[in-house]
Amino acid sequence: MALASGVRVPARALLRPWALLWGTTLGRREPAAGGGGDGERRFGSQRVLVEPDAAAGVAVMKFRNPPVNSLSLELLTELVISLEKLENDKTFRGVILTSDCPRVFSAGLDLTEMCGRNPAHYAEYWKAMQELWLRTYLSSLVLVAAINGACPAGGCVIALACDYRVLADNPKYRIGLNETLLGIIAPFWVKDAYVNTIGHRAAEQALQLGLLFPPAEALQVGLVDQVAPEDQVLSTALSEMARWLAIPDHARQLTKNMMRKATADRLLRQRDADIQNFVSFICRDSIQKSLQVYLEKLRQRKG
Amino acid sequence: MALASGVRVPARALLRPWALLWGTTLGRREPAAGGGGDGERRFGSQRVLVEPDAAAGVAVMKFRNPPVNSLSLELLTELVISLEKLENDKTFRGVILTSDCPRVFSAGLDLTEMCGRNPAHYAEYWKAMQELWLRTYLSSLVLVAAINGACPAGGCVIALACDYRVLADNPKYRIGLNETLLGIIAPFWVKDAYVNTIGHRAAEQALQLGLLFPPAEALQVGLVDQVAPEDQVLSTALSEMARWLAIPDHARQLTKNMMRKATADRLLRQRDADIQNFVSFICRDSIQKSLQVYLEKLRQRKG
Amino acid sequence: MALASGVRVPARALLRPWALLWGTTLGRREPAAGGGGDGERRFGSQRVLVEPDAAAGVAVMKFRNPPVNSLSLELLTELVISLEKLENDKTFRGVILTSDCPRVFSAGLDLTEMCGRNPAHYAEYWKAMQELWLRTYLSSLVLVAAINGACPAGGCVIALACDYRVLADNPKYRIGLNETLLGIIAPFWVKDAYVNTIGHRAAEQALQLGLLFPPAEALQVGLVDQVAPEDQVLSTALSEMARWLAIPDHARQLTKNMMRKATADRLLRQRDADIQNFVSFICRDSIQKSLQVYLEKLRQRKG
Repeated sequence: MALASGVRVPARALLRPWALLWGTTLGRREPAAGGGGDGERRFGSQRVLVEPDAAAGVAVMKFRNPPVNSLSLELLTELVISLEKLENDKTFRGVILTSDCPRVFSAGLDLTEMCGRNPAHYAEYWKAMQELWLRTYLSSLVLVAAINGACPAGGCVIALACDYRVLADNPKYRIGLNETLLGIIAPFWVKDAYVNTIGHRAAEQALQLGLLFPPAEALQVGLVDQVAPEDQVLSTALSEMARWLAIPDHARQLTKNMMRKATADRLLRQRDADIQNFVSFICRDSIQKSLQVYLEKLRQRKG
Repeated sequence: MALASGVRVPARALLRPWALLWGTTLGRREPAAGGGGDGERRFGSQRVLVEPDAAAGVAVMKFRNPPVNSLSLELLTELVISLEKLENDKTFRGVILTSDCPRVFSAGLDLTEMCGRNPAHYAEYWKAMQELWLRTYLSSLVLVAAINGACPAGGCVIALACDYRVLADNPKYRIGLNETLLGIIAPFWVKDAYVNTIGHRAAEQALQLGLLFPPAEALQVGLVDQVAPEDQVLSTALSEMARWLAIPDHARQLTKNMMRKATADRLLRQRDADIQNFVSFICRDSIQKSLQVYLEKLRQRKG
Repeated sequence: MALASGVRVPARALLRPWALLWGTTLGRREPAAGGGGDGERRFGSQRVLVEPDAAAGVAVMKFRNPPVNSLSLELLTELVISLEKLENDKTFRGVILTSDCPRVFSAGLDLTEMCGRNPAHYAEYWKAMQELWLRTYLSSLVLVAAINGACPAGGCVIALACDYRVLADNPKYRIGLNETLLGIIAPFWVKDAYVNTIGHRAAEQALQLGLLFPPAEALQVGLVDQVAPEDQVLSTALSEMARWLAIPDHARQLTKNMMRKATADRLLRQRDADIQNFVSFICRDSIQKSLQVYLEKLRQRKG
């Protein structure tokens, strides 16, 4: 792929819809910085940092795909693998999902995965996104999102898959599905989860208008369950986790499955068709041109 | 038809359930008064006044079927035709639906279309009601209801089909589906839309009790999205329209369809059966007698 | 069955989850105390007291299965029969469901019906629970729950089947589906009714965490419709009943059926499978052992 690596996206770009919707991979091939020093307490992959607390049965999983945790194919893959490992390790009963990048939880899909590639790549990419969704939405672990930054589009999708959402009380950290602002639409299974979370009417309006909710409004509409001071998001998520871990796992898991199975099954029944829809949409000339324009704008901002 | 034309319904009748449910056609054959003078800015039909703002891409569509905008077969037909015209005219992206009659948005179904006619007429009438519903509910245009008067039964059905509802802040302007008060029931597709808008529990209670909500309660339950001072309903609706028109049409239309298609499809699959249900219900002796009693009461009120 | 009768459960046990979930039958074979004196105004069975007000068309049905109105097979059967009688008696249009036992509406399923019996008994018991649910949820009568005590698990199931819920304003009288606290799960049809009442997201959280809501929270989440001072629960329920009886029965009944049929049909289609699920779950060694431990704890508390 021809995109230069090392292109930086300034923080202010995070407030633009096109930056918020699609995290870019402009910087994604940089090796994840930092991380050493306390290696014995941490594990995980290059882009997913896992901090286990075996005694509590809880792991904190931090997204580290600077600058904006765009959901590149690599990040999606590493998230699925990390989650799978934790699910298969009886030590763990719950996972906190949070960001290691300042000011952004995840900016969503990776623009560069969707532009200038071939259909097979698009199909692989979308399948990975579906896979992350299914893994998180149906996880047998308790998943709590500690949303410590902006959370648009794909970031919101990950948050919706969790059992509980805590959002940092910073008006810049908005959350929502803002796809329409860019001329695209959310997939039906994300729409289903949105309806399950905030109800049909609120979802209808929020999806059409591409609304991004600041913390107070996100709480009111039910998109997040709690708002916490920015420096207490993780501790709040951990306290909440303790409430969920007080419930016998087996009964909680069966109940979660009972609540979510019908929604997940709708995707499972139409998974290939959903991939084909995505690929044919992305392959349109008009969409490819739009994506190239967005990428160019992002690059020009690096100055 | 034997009904005398020119029978007037006093304004106070609007507050009686039987008047609010079914607008009467007692006055409907009067030619629509007024309307001239600014012909170059307006178009539309006899009962539907359309005021276009081509620059903004918005048209204001006013119901003019005095005294209470009862949904006669003629009004239903003209509404569908006017909407179709606007949908086919690329100039327009949004429509405000409002009333040209004082104190009432629409009183709902037309009693006289449902009484003393033959089954073929009832079938034609109900099909026209379905058609208006499907046209509005699935419209590719942004529809905003500027509800400037009482909005029971069929009036509420039209409002429910819109994308956004602004209600005038006058406690007399109540909105809801009050069919049970008259011994009849809302069709299943209206029930579905009610559930989509205010949720299952609120719809269950409101439908069984035939609740008409005053503005503050309508806002709280989510039946309207905004309440505005009576003289600012239209301007509020226009401001809101601007927010919706800021979204790319194609993405907004696809999203709207994704949200509403399942509900509309339920009616489409059972459209003929729904017509047969209506006709056989209306043809019952007991219902015909009730309707005649209502009509007689309305006539005696003209005093 | 080997369980000693006459074992008393102290009131404080009502606040323990395992007591709140499953009412015990430890005391259920005692003859219902009191009850005489005003025999001409009352009828009913041993465990269900019916106080008719023929003039109003309303009957008050009181559960009397001390100490905690556990839903024994006998109580379930008598409730179904009493309800059937009232439905077949044209005198009655509405029924208030309430408790004759102090401090508890109903503690839910009867532990002793689910422990140490044979599979045929478990199947009979679960079928009776389904039957009570279907009878109440689809009742042609207006059912108002006057919840004058703790209302966990099966108690909440009965309340959910009513048309309207009034809860006494006492923080000890909590209501909810707390099954997971005991390592078991609510059946899918109860989950469906929970979602219909408080919405998908609130139900997902409440079911997983086994939440019991105190009055103010129950009102806020929509699990009850009104909170009343403890000595006015019945009078409040009667006032509310009058509102519902102001609606023509036939239209109200058709509307209720339209709202609830799909949910009830899901159970009707899978009724036998649901019984088999229950029986095979209850027959597990691990579950039988847990139940025996609970029963033993209850017995030891009698001291």
